[in-house]
Formats: sequence, structure tokens, C-alpha cells
Amino acid sequence: MASWLDKVNWQENGLVPAIAQDAKTKRVLMVAWMNREALRLTLEKGEAVYWSRSRGKLWHKGEKSGHVQKVLEIRLDCDADVILLMIEQEGGIACHTGRESCFFTRLEEGEWRAVDEVLKSPDEIYRKS
Amino acid sequence: MASWLDKVNWQENGLVPAIAQDAKTKRVLMVAWMNREALRLTLEKGEAVYWSRSRGKLWHKGEKSGHVQKVLEIRLDCDADVILLMIEQEGGIACHTGRESCFFTRLEEGEWRAVDEVLKSPDEIYRKS
Repeated sequence: MASWLDKVNWQENGLVPAIAQDAKTKRVLMVAWMNREALRLTLEKGEAVYWSRSRGKLWHKGEKSGHVQKVLEIRLDCDADVILLMIEQEGGIACHTGRESCFFTRLEEGEWRAVDEVLKSPDEIYRKS
Repeated sequence: MASWLDKVNWQENGLVPAIAQDAKTKRVLMVAWMNREALRLTLEKGEAVYWSRSRGKLWHKGEKSGHVQKVLEIRLDCDADVILLMIEQEGGIACHTGRESCFFTRLEEGEWRAVDEVLKSPDEIYRKS
């Protein structure tokens, strides 16, 4: 395996968090997890591939929704334990709720409030013809 | 304790990752960890407080370097397991290496390369008179 993958400081469970940031809007869209294979595939495909902890398998983002993430740049932090992807977000929607970003909830007066609009309903996103 | 803290989906170890994003430059500056007390103190102080996993204690960012992070906004993602802070970075430097962002390393032709400049030497940052 390529040595650049060895430079990543994988956690004990073999994962690291990966942030997807929109290269155009600069919004932080989501955070998911990657294992070695997910990161390797991300580079190979030029599209974000994560490790789904809930499903226990590789997750090519957008495989169901069509909301793939074209990867323009891959960065690593100074501790080598967090990945940052600069991406182009297909459809302008990263979140399964139909919003641009998964970070649509803001703390206001002691409450978490959803402050970003739903651009497309999840029913529409995940309905297959 | 306030109920908004209960809405966070703390991991088994009581932590969640927290991203600091510069509200002005929009750069992702760093990722650290927070426990319940760190998040509570972050709101209380209006400055980022993390949990240092290596030192096993609360870490008021900037306590040594002076590079405190004034928190303008606290967001939570759709799974409630990642925090996003929109911040003003004192000194314009978040990284202990003296760079704006901890994500100064980029994958280029199969190698991680440091591509961002050092704005201030660590010796200078951490030297106390």
C-alpha cells in the first residue's frame, strides 16, 4: 500500500474523521469517518468515499442520493488524525435532510434550532424511478 | 445541567469532535475534542474550550499561546455528534506550528506536503517573558 496512507494517524478502530468543505461556498458540509480503504478509494475515484459506522461498510457518498462529492483537494492536519476534503457538492446538498450542510442546527438562547432551509425533500432525494 | 447539553450525542468516551472554522476567512482551522464541561464552558466564556485527550484535562485554547478563539456561533450536525464553532481567531494563528490552520498539509502526487506558510515561529509563540 502507498506510504502516504501510513502517514495518517489512524485511531485504534482504524478510522479518522473526515470533513467535507464546499470549495465554492466554503461551508463545512459534513463530517464522516474514513478507514484506509475509504481514503485510498477517495483518491482513486476523485469522489468522497467514507466508512459508514452504522452500516459497517464503505459508503460512496451519493450512491443513493446522487449527491456525490467531487474531491478537489485532500488535506491532513498537524496531528495527522483528521482529513479535510475540499469538494464540489453535486446538487448543492450534502445532508440527508435535504439541506446544504449537516450543520443546520445552531445554539440560540439555550436551544438547538434548525436555521437552514430544506432545499429538497428527502422523499424526493431518495425516491428512485 | 442544561438540556441542550443532553441533545449532544456524546461518544462512549464522553467526547465529540469540534471543528473551529474562521468566520472571516472561512478556513477550517482545527479539530479538537470536547466533553460536556468543555462545551458548557465554551458557551459560558464565549471562547473555545476543548478537552485535551493527550493531557487528560480541559484546554482553554490560547491559554499559553494567546491565540484564543472567540466563539460567534455554535452548531451541531444532523447526527448531533459533531460540533462546529464559527470563531474569530486571535492572532490569525490556530496551529501550534505557527500557521493559520492545522490543515496545512496537502496530498500532492502521492505525498503529503506542507503548503501553507508559518506566520510566526513556535519559539516566539510559546516564549514567555
